[in-house]
Amino acid sequence: MPEFFNVRSPARALADLLPRLTPIEGRETVPTTEALGRIVARDVRSPEDLPTFARSAMDGYSVRARDTFGASESLPALLEVVADIPTGQTSDIEIGTGEAVVAYTGGTLAKGTDAVVMVERTQPADERSIEVLRPVAPGENVIQVGEDVRKGEVVLKRGRRLRAQDVGGLLALGIVETEVLRRPKVGIISTGDELAAPSETPPPGKVRDINTYTIAARAAQCGADALALGLLPDVYEAQLAAAREGLKSVDALIFSAGSSLSTRDMTARVFDALGEPGVLTHGISIKPGKPTIVAVADGKPLFGLPGNPVSALVVFDLLAAPALRVLSGETGQSLSPAISALLTEDVPSESGREDFFPVRLSESDGAVSASPIFGKSNLIYTLVDSDGIARVPPESGGLYAGEVVEVLIYKT
Amino acid sequence: MPEFFNVRSPARALADLLPRLTPIEGRETVPTTEALGRIVARDVRSPEDLPTFARSAMDGYSVRARDTFGASESLPALLEVVADIPTGQTSDIEIGTGEAVVAYTGGTLAKGTDAVVMVERTQPADERSIEVLRPVAPGENVIQVGEDVRKGEVVLKRGRRLRAQDVGGLLALGIVETEVLRRPKVGIISTGDELAAPSETPPPGKVRDINTYTIAARAAQCGADALALGLLPDVYEAQLAAAREGLKSVDALIFSAGSSLSTRDMTARVFDALGEPGVLTHGISIKPGKPTIVAVADGKPLFGLPGNPVSALVVFDLLAAPALRVLSGETGQSLSPAISALLTEDVPSESGREDFFPVRLSESDGAVSASPIFGKSNLIYTLVDSDGIARVPPESGGLYAGEVVEVLIYKT
Repeated sequence: MPEFFNVRSPARALADLLPRLTPIEGRETVPTTEALGRIVARDVRSPEDLPTFARSAMDGYSVRARDTFGASESLPALLEVVADIPTGQTSDIEIGTGEAVVAYTGGTLAKGTDAVVMVERTQPADERSIEVLRPVAPGENVIQVGEDVRKGEVVLKRGRRLRAQDVGGLLALGIVETEVLRRPKVGIISTGDELAAPSETPPPGKVRDINTYTIAARAAQCGADALALGLLPDVYEAQLAAAREGLKSVDALIFSAGSSLSTRDMTARVFDALGEPGVLTHGISIKPGKPTIVAVADGKPLFGLPGNPVSALVVFDLLAAPALRVLSGETGQSLSPAISALLTEDVPSESGREDFFPVRLSESDGAVSASPIFGKSNLIYTLVDSDGIARVPPESGGLYAGEVVEVLIYKT
Repeated sequence: MPEFFNVRSPARALADLLPRLTPIEGRETVPTTEALGRIVARDVRSPEDLPTFARSAMDGYSVRARDTFGASESLPALLEVVADIPTGQTSDIEIGTGEAVVAYTGGTLAKGTDAVVMVERTQPADERSIEVLRPVAPGENVIQVGEDVRKGEVVLKRGRRLRAQDVGGLLALGIVETEVLRRPKVGIISTGDELAAPSETPPPGKVRDINTYTIAARAAQCGADALALGLLPDVYEAQLAAAREGLKSVDALIFSAGSSLSTRDMTARVFDALGEPGVLTHGISIKPGKPTIVAVADGKPLFGLPGNPVSALVVFDLLAAPALRVLSGETGQSLSPAISALLTEDVPSESGREDFFPVRLSESDGAVSASPIFGKSNLIYTLVDSDGIARVPPESGGLYAGEVVEVLIYKT
């Protein structure tokens, strides 16, 4: 049973794959309040200045700054308080030399004023007057018109995944509907004569399918819509027919194939039959996850993930997640939520291969420790019992206890 | 306008608050495939061994290990291949001395065998026989019955927030429905005479409400259901009535109040009137976010967040998010997805106060740099334009360019 592996590093596999992919085109308009996590479909420009009027940044008094120049504790500036502008209101009051108007945080300033004196920098002189104990510069404690955003400015670029503050930023400008890109659709096919549905009691020799559901959950966390396209036996014609039919309605296809040689070969043959250019990478230099297949059929990425649940999730995160990100139209940098931790045990590895292993994390005095959980990658509970996946870089021949290791924290 | 601030550190405010909170009691049973992110309501025990039969971890041959003892390249062990057990099937074949049966990854072993020889460690001798080039130990390349999980073992503890692999782990055991805790309900009230709904064009002196929506989005990311309870003027009776009515149907209440002294006082008075013990903390030693109020009314946490959108989000993450976590019933450690970055500019601070400021992140050669975005905390777009929030610890009087700073990455 010889096998040709076109074994590559994950980085090399991605470098070959990603440039062949383009963001999906579909768009939809959604209420901004429901747009959290969606991708902005076109540059958004501000329809107005924000704020539209000069606002006080403090509680105090709006004044003409020059009336306070030279003021000090020993020689305060005396100002007459001629009005009070309640928050949310405006006033036609226009002040003259030596006058001040009560201002509230977020409220408007009186006409003719150019600065706000904080109430803490004043003291009452008499019923109608205050003493200003320090000078203010023109513009001090004032939020100027357009200081947050200027009319016409691009406030969100196409490709931004909307966060809580982005939703707030759009609503601040009265943008209550937002055009976003459609979510990518990912089809998932689990193959293997040994698989049964989770709701069944598997007959002897069979086990329940897990990968359809773990991969669907991770795809959803990546902002994709996952479609379970079925559980198929190791029969080439059946797999090809299901893949061909499924591919019509999805943007990406994931096969969770068996890990035996024959089933891997079958996945590769199916992928080659689905469209051009077919299989790009057959085998990646990581452990676990070596028997991985990456292909493209007419612009759509296809992934053959190893059947082992641990390998399947590791490879999904390494290869399929970045591909889904391209499809989603998200642009800008992607910072991996990785932390550094101190290894509690020696971990052997082989130079030239990236190793990944689940770890349990613990924190004490601000230092995070990572304890490896060793186990065959067939064992789903090695992942269930872990807090993250640690990585041994390819140039390393292993890590010693006490060395720093990079840990990818699971998204929940 | 004097004001008494019972100013505390965020840690102190939390230490006073969290012990007064208890997880919500409500439970519901959901399909496991839809339970991602939910909190497990009771310890889950495995109804069976996983796997239920010994499985091959490799492609090769199931053998009696002792038949391979002493085998080497120069003196291989000769075994007769007497059967082939396809994946997903079992067989009554029982082997004798000097015999082997073809085994596939994930498949069953023949009766009487106790190990699997990898195909790569064999070579064909003749049509019916193979030569084994290295010995295997008993159990080698075999996943034993119950090696992943033993029947009766607690596989997930009450309080686990379900991740992709946890969903898979439950389904592997045939647990297709899972009892989870109800999501906490958070009511949000925005107060301020200066506020208008986002769908309106605000009249002069008013601005659109942002905080209801940014806080609702963050609450949703924390696994809570957010209810917008309305936009209220700075009228004590109206605020108290709305808060009292809202509190009946929620587990926690958030006021986004104005930042002027009078409105902060009003929030504190409303909270004191809602139930015992009332206000716990009035003012926290952080910038921005000092005018924060933390209270408890009959077991439910109440938060008065500053009206400034930047402060409101920072304080939500520091105080409200940990409280929601307690209410949610989630247990176990909470690792903040913080990264270390190199500051690009000096940042002044005051000793004894934690400072937070939005930063833009950039990555080159594996090093992450954080560039501060300075701006008044009224400006929502300082957050929109940022990638995370950097923190200057309270013991620091400031940080210099080139120093390491901790950055909390926004969740999307």
